[in-house]
Amino acid sequence: MKLLRNLRKISTFQIPERGHYKLLDNKDIDFFSSILPSHSILTKDLDAYNTDWLRFHKGNSSIVLKPKTTEEVKSILEYCNKEKIAIVPQGGNTGQVIGSVPIYDEVILSLQNMNRILKIDSSQGVVWTEAGVILEYLNSFCEEHGWIVPLDLASKGSCFIGGNVATCAGGVRYIRYGSLHGNVLGLEAVLPTGEILSDLKGLRKDNTGYDYKQLFIGSEGTLGVITKIALLLAPKPISQQVAMISCKSYENVLQLLKDAKQGIGEILSAFEMMDSYIYSLLLKHTPRTRNPFTADSEFYVLIETSGSNKDHDIEKLQAYLENGLKNNVITDAVLALDQEQANNFWRIREGTATATKSEGYVFKYDLSLSIAKMYDLVRKTRERVGSLGYTVGYGHVGDGNLHLVVSTNEKEKAHRILEPWIYEQIQELKGSVSAEHGIGLLKASKLKYTKSKVMIENMKLMKNIFDPNGIMNPYKVLNNSN
Amino acid sequence: MKLLRNLRKISTFQIPERGHYKLLDNKDIDFFSSILPSHSILTKDLDAYNTDWLRFHKGNSSIVLKPKTTEEVKSILEYCNKEKIAIVPQGGNTGQVIGSVPIYDEVILSLQNMNRILKIDSSQGVVWTEAGVILEYLNSFCEEHGWIVPLDLASKGSCFIGGNVATCAGGVRYIRYGSLHGNVLGLEAVLPTGEILSDLKGLRKDNTGYDYKQLFIGSEGTLGVITKIALLLAPKPISQQVAMISCKSYENVLQLLKDAKQGIGEILSAFEMMDSYIYSLLLKHTPRTRNPFTADSEFYVLIETSGSNKDHDIEKLQAYLENGLKNNVITDAVLALDQEQANNFWRIREGTATATKSEGYVFKYDLSLSIAKMYDLVRKTRERVGSLGYTVGYGHVGDGNLHLVVSTNEKEKAHRILEPWIYEQIQELKGSVSAEHGIGLLKASKLKYTKSKVMIENMKLMKNIFDPNGIMNPYKVLNNSN
Repeated sequence: MKLLRNLRKISTFQIPERGHYKLLDNKDIDFFSSILPSHSILTKDLDAYNTDWLRFHKGNSSIVLKPKTTEEVKSILEYCNKEKIAIVPQGGNTGQVIGSVPIYDEVILSLQNMNRILKIDSSQGVVWTEAGVILEYLNSFCEEHGWIVPLDLASKGSCFIGGNVATCAGGVRYIRYGSLHGNVLGLEAVLPTGEILSDLKGLRKDNTGYDYKQLFIGSEGTLGVITKIALLLAPKPISQQVAMISCKSYENVLQLLKDAKQGIGEILSAFEMMDSYIYSLLLKHTPRTRNPFTADSEFYVLIETSGSNKDHDIEKLQAYLENGLKNNVITDAVLALDQEQANNFWRIREGTATATKSEGYVFKYDLSLSIAKMYDLVRKTRERVGSLGYTVGYGHVGDGNLHLVVSTNEKEKAHRILEPWIYEQIQELKGSVSAEHGIGLLKASKLKYTKSKVMIENMKLMKNIFDPNGIMNPYKVLNNSN
Repeated sequence: MKLLRNLRKISTFQIPERGHYKLLDNKDIDFFSSILPSHSILTKDLDAYNTDWLRFHKGNSSIVLKPKTTEEVKSILEYCNKEKIAIVPQGGNTGQVIGSVPIYDEVILSLQNMNRILKIDSSQGVVWTEAGVILEYLNSFCEEHGWIVPLDLASKGSCFIGGNVATCAGGVRYIRYGSLHGNVLGLEAVLPTGEILSDLKGLRKDNTGYDYKQLFIGSEGTLGVITKIALLLAPKPISQQVAMISCKSYENVLQLLKDAKQGIGEILSAFEMMDSYIYSLLLKHTPRTRNPFTADSEFYVLIETSGSNKDHDIEKLQAYLENGLKNNVITDAVLALDQEQANNFWRIREGTATATKSEGYVFKYDLSLSIAKMYDLVRKTRERVGSLGYTVGYGHVGDGNLHLVVSTNEKEKAHRILEPWIYEQIQELKGSVSAEHGIGLLKASKLKYTKSKVMIENMKLMKNIFDPNGIMNPYKVLNNSN
């Protein structure tokens, strides 16, 4: 990991008081040393483990445990539960909501050493893996067998599949392959009580009682530690085509999306919108990109198809684009002719995080909204922020998921203008305050804008079943600010 | 509903003792009369409501309540919870596991009057509906707007969408559109406490805490009453092609499936296997069917594709079939040339329930197994049953879901030979005792063959959160036999 820059502290989140957890002493270290080999225990140079990906927060843990087996996880959890020692499970630590780092001195349980792919069934397309396998590596392994992981994220080179499941990660191919709630076939999870919930049969259908592995998908480490996963794969596409489209209005984007679902729905694997504001930042700040268009436009859409027959896919995509041009829904369109062009288009889209950061302090909102009203919120925000910052909108519009970002050099002022106003807007529009990034600590106090009191109360009851002493990833998702 | 035939009683399931629920008295009837109009309360001719679809069991309820609104459901549940009156929610009552009828005298809460489709979003393909809408009707409505319900069942003309969600129904297009765990975007459910869990935003992505609507999907009415649903739709296919294939061995079927996923994966919408034993019954007992093949074979596969371009789909399907013939994986194949031929193929496949029943008393097992080992179990069962019955295997093999049926005129003898042996086999093969039919009362005592003790115990704790007095669909799924 790189050297960490200064923390980007700002009062956008509240830190609850430290819970009544035991302070680690020598007896505890001795216990951990008795069950783990010495190279699986770190007590020095822990900055990278203590600090979150976006450098919002640095915790103060003095120990990282790296179990290699489910039994080791079980021993750690049982002990900590008995002693009331708080734990934060950590995968690739690439989360965006302060979910995988200690807030105070929680023991860090890193899944780094549980990094074996266990088995693949090439007939059915199912892979069994430990939680600490890096997404990109898992995908490469599956590709060799003719399959792909139905999930693709910009952080794929660092994030772990266990973290993906624990946070119910979304990403760019969600529009095609859907949610991990549909694709995770089974889990092994260790509870703080030492119980192991194990269902790794890898069956596609299993209607035998409450499907409560689903609770762990998106639980962000607050219920237990996911140690193994059985995952449904998608066939590796034979042909992938990428096109970049420009159009005049958001209404055109909506029409394009509808036409895409109906006309090329079976091969559509990405539909990513960028407004002209983010697009110009992307061209400015992303190395090795070229603008495929000669004229400026209001909106840009990257479309990707994945299919089994190149001729068919190109024919469908071309017909779709020609139809859009004919109906004046599309202003201009460029179909990538080779991999280099395709990479150029994707590079533009994937440069968003760097591009927005280059313009100042970043307020990033990861929203779900009904797509019809989605862009109105960007316009309203831009108007409200005015000259105080630069407001852009982009994202997985095909899934109703917008990333709304304000870059500013006046962070305290912008903060006061933006919050809680923006969350109230989301609530009014019946949206979600977190489409795919989760809640963590960062958004715990915002949960109420999406979930009713009753629902939050029931979540707390559920947490209490699995984690009666509240040692699992405390302060995250559910806390006193809900 | 038709007149009911005699019950098919057999000792394949245990009926637990009646719980300490209140016996209904006049005060209760008065209460129900105070909140519901008289035509929403039935107290006569309740046979059809008391008896399950397969006529395994007839309950003894004296009252059917048919609320029209969520508020009415809330009033009923609150009252019954307070008075400790047991309730069974009922949809189309087409379940196969005695899940939707009273075991004793439970109040029947029918969703028949909550039958309005509320809204459709034609841009995004999302429909909002009350729970009592018939699946086929809902699908026709969506088709008019260019979409389909991502679920198709033989019982579509009678089953309710609420029941589909409450049982996590599977069906023939699961291979394409996947599980309701991925397709249900939101629910409104009324709890016995009177709390309403409502999340009907219809967002495709929403990572805000535990996704516990998932618990209701497949809960079979044991947690609360699902009253409304937001459902993700799939684009209505422009082209549908159907082919019937014959082949020599189960290994050929597996190869065909793998080739289908890889070669025509994006348009594949059904892959249904029939062995020669069920196939001959189907030809014998299903009216208006013609065998498309001149020679007999060991296995038959019905393949359906759904896509957006007829020429492409036919070209892909033909290439797939030709490749199979060339490699001797396929013995013979017939592509339906028109709707009439396609209907004929589907009629063959959908005649299974009638065909097996025509041969005697039916033991039907709805199993999930790793597909590599799946057919071995049919062979072993056939050997074990010997001349005592007729053993067939068919089903959604593309999803690892096998229907194994033994028709016999020696039911008690066959029962002793089949059970618990077959469940022990499933357990050993790490399969599921219920792939898509659920548990109900019929399989409650079989749950342990698929779910561990810890998992069953946790399910009971979860039930206790939502239904502390245990009034919701008692005796089903979780009971003393687990």
